Amino acid sequence: MKILLIGGTGTIGSKVAERLDADHQLIIAGRSSGDVQVDITKPDSIQKLFEETGNIDAVIVTAGSAPVKPLADSTNEDFIQGIKSKMMGQINVALTALDYLNEGGSVTLTSGILSDDPIPQGTILSTINGAVNGFVTGAYGEFLQKGFRINAVSPALVEDSADALGDFFPGHTPAQMEHVVDGYEKSLKTLITGQIINIS
Amino acid sequence: MKILLIGGTGTIGSKVAERLDADHQLIIAGRSSGDVQVDITKPDSIQKLFEETGNIDAVIVTAGSAPVKPLADSTNEDFIQGIKSKMMGQINVALTALDYLNEGGSVTLTSGILSDDPIPQGTILSTINGAVNGFVTGAYGEFLQKGFRINAVSPALVEDSADALGDFFPGHTPAQMEHVVDGYEKSLKTLITGQIINIS
Repeated sequence: MKILLIGGTGTIGSKVAERLDADHQLIIAGRSSGDVQVDITKPDSIQKLFEETGNIDAVIVTAGSAPVKPLADSTNEDFIQGIKSKMMGQINVALTALDYLNEGGSVTLTSGILSDDPIPQGTILSTINGAVNGFVTGAYGEFLQKGFRINAVSPALVEDSADALGDFFPGHTPAQMEHVVDGYEKSLKTLITGQIINIS
Repeated sequence: MKILLIGGTGTIGSKVAERLDADHQLIIAGRSSGDVQVDITKPDSIQKLFEETGNIDAVIVTAGSAPVKPLADSTNEDFIQGIKSKMMGQINVALTALDYLNEGGSVTLTSGILSDDPIPQGTILSTINGAVNGFVTGAYGEFLQKGFRINAVSPALVEDSADALGDFFPGHTPAQMEHVVDGYEKSLKTLITGQIINIS
């Protein structure tokens, strides 16, 4: 398969790349690293990326961020920052992929545990992860009509981030990275669709 | 209680108003009707609304919309339209309310069944309802720290909309409006928080 992996140099993406690299034609997109560059906050940049890659069999997105800050200090602009990146960045990749997927193609997005299991200062990510999950639930039927699939992997705090982020996630048991990568492989290689693949 | 009901002249809001009017000081906000005017797509307009009402005991939002259209025709701009209205419109009301709620105050937002039970052409609403639910889940802890509560009512297609919208919801059993109004009253008068109150 020819697979576009957006965010393939990040914490999770680099491990997904390791798993898939041997058996697939992997194109790694990053903001400033990887094989091709993309700024997912800009729909034009996403369009240009797909024009560069041409038709593909699958897209996986492990990119996108959102501010982590106290709710009382969070403004409309803070939410918009996360919306442009992890929410609409991923959604615009999925919308653009509709024109570039080969028959049987799939899209795999990334949400996260905070939509269901909140932490202090994490409301913007809770919101955006909920939006990504809602998008997958809403979109899979119209993906199906074109012969495509779409899922989201929703990981817990991953063990590779536990040193850096663990203090924000008190009492959260980190997910093993191998299990998280399993989620992406399951979305890619089984025939499931419309699923939120929770990895805890 | 002094209750601000944003969207109180709409299909659901007007029935919530009927239920609450006799026993409470109800301030109905609408875009062009009601006691006070607000454009929830504009954070400044929301700020001005709360300056007008002063401190309140509860806010209920039954306002906000999003485009309904085929996924393949949906653009970033279509999503942004829904984000500004039903998503950030409601979220900005909740954020602003943090400065205007009396002790024990509550916020009740409106999401909807499409985050979990999708229809063709409904992906933008699925996304936005998921975001609103994620916000409530993420935010309730920091509301709690201030002595406030926050919930969302997530109604199915309501019977009062079934004639106009039923064709978009094939096989969906409309919810009785009395049951939907019960959801808002439950959020307002019990002590639950962080809940998505599903009304089917």
